[in-house]
Amino acid sequence: MDRFSFAADFEELLNVGIALSSIHDLEKLLNMILLEARRLTQADAGTLYLVKGDRLIFRVSQCQSLSDRLGEDRMRQMYQSFEMPVSRESIAGYSALTRKVLNIPDVKEIPPEASYHYNPSWDQKAGYASHSMMAVPMLNRDGEAVGVLQLINALSDGRVIPFRIEHEKLASSLASQAAVAIENAELTENLKQAHLDTIFRLGVAAEYRDKETANHIKRMSRYCALIAEGLGWGKEEVEVILWSSLMHDVGKLGIPDRILQKPGPLTAEERKIMEYHTTIGGNILKGSAASVLQKSRVVAVTHHEKFDGTGYPRGLKGEKIPLEGRITILADVFDALSSKRVYKEAMPEAEVLRILQEGRGAHFDPRILDVFLDRLGEVRKIKERHSDREGDFDKFRDLDSLENDKEDSSRP
Amino acid sequence: MDRFSFAADFEELLNVGIALSSIHDLEKLLNMILLEARRLTQADAGTLYLVKGDRLIFRVSQCQSLSDRLGEDRMRQMYQSFEMPVSRESIAGYSALTRKVLNIPDVKEIPPEASYHYNPSWDQKAGYASHSMMAVPMLNRDGEAVGVLQLINALSDGRVIPFRIEHEKLASSLASQAAVAIENAELTENLKQAHLDTIFRLGVAAEYRDKETANHIKRMSRYCALIAEGLGWGKEEVEVILWSSLMHDVGKLGIPDRILQKPGPLTAEERKIMEYHTTIGGNILKGSAASVLQKSRVVAVTHHEKFDGTGYPRGLKGEKIPLEGRITILADVFDALSSKRVYKEAMPEAEVLRILQEGRGAHFDPRILDVFLDRLGEVRKIKERHSDREGDFDKFRDLDSLENDKEDSSRP
Repeated sequence: MDRFSFAADFEELLNVGIALSSIHDLEKLLNMILLEARRLTQADAGTLYLVKGDRLIFRVSQCQSLSDRLGEDRMRQMYQSFEMPVSRESIAGYSALTRKVLNIPDVKEIPPEASYHYNPSWDQKAGYASHSMMAVPMLNRDGEAVGVLQLINALSDGRVIPFRIEHEKLASSLASQAAVAIENAELTENLKQAHLDTIFRLGVAAEYRDKETANHIKRMSRYCALIAEGLGWGKEEVEVILWSSLMHDVGKLGIPDRILQKPGPLTAEERKIMEYHTTIGGNILKGSAASVLQKSRVVAVTHHEKFDGTGYPRGLKGEKIPLEGRITILADVFDALSSKRVYKEAMPEAEVLRILQEGRGAHFDPRILDVFLDRLGEVRKIKERHSDREGDFDKFRDLDSLENDKEDSSRP
Repeated sequence: MDRFSFAADFEELLNVGIALSSIHDLEKLLNMILLEARRLTQADAGTLYLVKGDRLIFRVSQCQSLSDRLGEDRMRQMYQSFEMPVSRESIAGYSALTRKVLNIPDVKEIPPEASYHYNPSWDQKAGYASHSMMAVPMLNRDGEAVGVLQLINALSDGRVIPFRIEHEKLASSLASQAAVAIENAELTENLKQAHLDTIFRLGVAAEYRDKETANHIKRMSRYCALIAEGLGWGKEEVEVILWSSLMHDVGKLGIPDRILQKPGPLTAEERKIMEYHTTIGGNILKGSAASVLQKSRVVAVTHHEKFDGTGYPRGLKGEKIPLEGRITILADVFDALSSKRVYKEAMPEAEVLRILQEGRGAHFDPRILDVFLDRLGEVRKIKERHSDREGDFDKFRDLDSLENDKEDSSRP
């Protein structure tokens, strides 16, 4: 059981550090950190907290003996997200504030003069008996506590023993590696979130002129992601189409108001100009090395093609239309039909589905239509969650009142 | 000199790994990797290559004895960027392909049957004598070579000796840590680049309707960054204003064509609507947790204020205008005056400078004006590098030919 013989411990830690550094998904990383810390110290259970400002945020809990007894699923239900202040009164808080390892042989025998206390509520709820405990602060390179590892019940031959003194240093080293890995994963998440935020605004800006709502591009991109999942795409690819489809209509930015905002039907020539938004979108998005932008260009250019070759701008047919395009075509049409616009009411679902079926093999790729129809439950949830409300159509209101644009306000 | 006693080596390596993981700047990281590898193996010199496809790209070289003799600056001039194929004929290529450490006691005595050869050109050029050499592949978690560390002339008491066998394993461990750190730094750079790319397109989309050029926002954002540097801002803050100023005119997306593209002067009411682009920009950019978008909102809303309080939309005065706004005001006006537009020629520099001086304390913050004028040499370089060419004004050409918009093509 003593997998870490002390001599090889540090070499093993090197490999753990490399493994942790290559995980960019924060959730997965935190689970791995706690698992490795428990393995290193032979701890039956443990909890991982992150420090955010003056709060300790509970993130992960693991308990081998309870998992064995109750099963992973029951276990997961028992943990509820919670947070507490960083204070000297809790064991984790004390460790975070002092930035020291707190090695407690038995939590039932903490000396009364200690500022920290053991909170038995979890033991009572879970039917668990905590004895030995070691709290290890995860310190970053500036010596700040990024979080705390709380390890519970060191085991030796199945019996609970106090945590070994030599494990304090090893666990601290692991915790330092963990701290930098956590900061890196958070940096990556923040960079991705900031990028997504910008992409969304580029999409919103395009819809802004078109009097559509931000909810349209939210729903539509989520339908695309749903279809991609249904096609068995990996997490990363699903994310790319979620992001890139947000920009499908960006080319509308280049279409003159008198066409984009014309109340009545378009003339043949006006329609030709309107169709040009696919090509303009391609121009705005071209020339990037980033895969999100490359895919968004594909989507922008192809989201008005039709499976039978009668779409625009290029009249591509069947699988000549890139898969991302075929996905977007369906998601865009479904949302246009099934949701309210300033100038029309939403169509009843049965009617929408009838139209989709009619377009099978003509407008839509049959395989993608099937994947979509198989997921109608999910589709309805997305539709419900991002439904338009009256105020969503009022973006131009202040501007309209400023400009008294009769033509504009007369729009149905 | 033997700083790494073997027993403590792995513990030291842990700390090196943590240090490497926290460097996100690739250039800085590569230098640090080579430095640590040389320190670990007591190497006088070394070179770091990255593998890109089937090429080895030279990235960093260091040589203690030459630096001592010639000085860092002379040293730096001696290294020219180069690349070579990954092949078994070079020492670094052999190591990358076999994914093994190559420990050569003396490069002058490589057995003739070896597939790799020593290339003496650098020695000859630098007046250096390479003897012992160790090439260490930097392998990622999938066992792929991300790059190669080539260490030269192990030293002991000032004499060149072969690299020690026990250093092969240590250097390999360091190289594995280096590989994951390099991949992480590249991921971070790619994420940032992709985000910047999207921001740029949001800016371009706005200018698209306005018939200004992408070069305007490039120049203008670089002027902002130049001023920020002059104010002593840190690298990160300079980057944030560079990025966020790209979006200063994004609110023009919400202004009707008939005003935005009107050939003649605007009426008072039209001007009022036009001024509304600052507020619309604020709306498009609001509500993000990302600092780039938060700052870009500040810039969008305040880039038409004036230092004496006579600007719009809020008539803010002096330091009530956020610093980012005051920077953008100057950069935007300077570029508008000093560059050609479809409807006007560029103004001579002397004339532009006279107008800026006239606006001192009225339109512009005097301190920012001084910082800008102190850097006229740099300003001219930016202006030159991103100057507009005739074709840059033709973005709408295809669309114009489609729509035959007489009013539009009659624009001066």
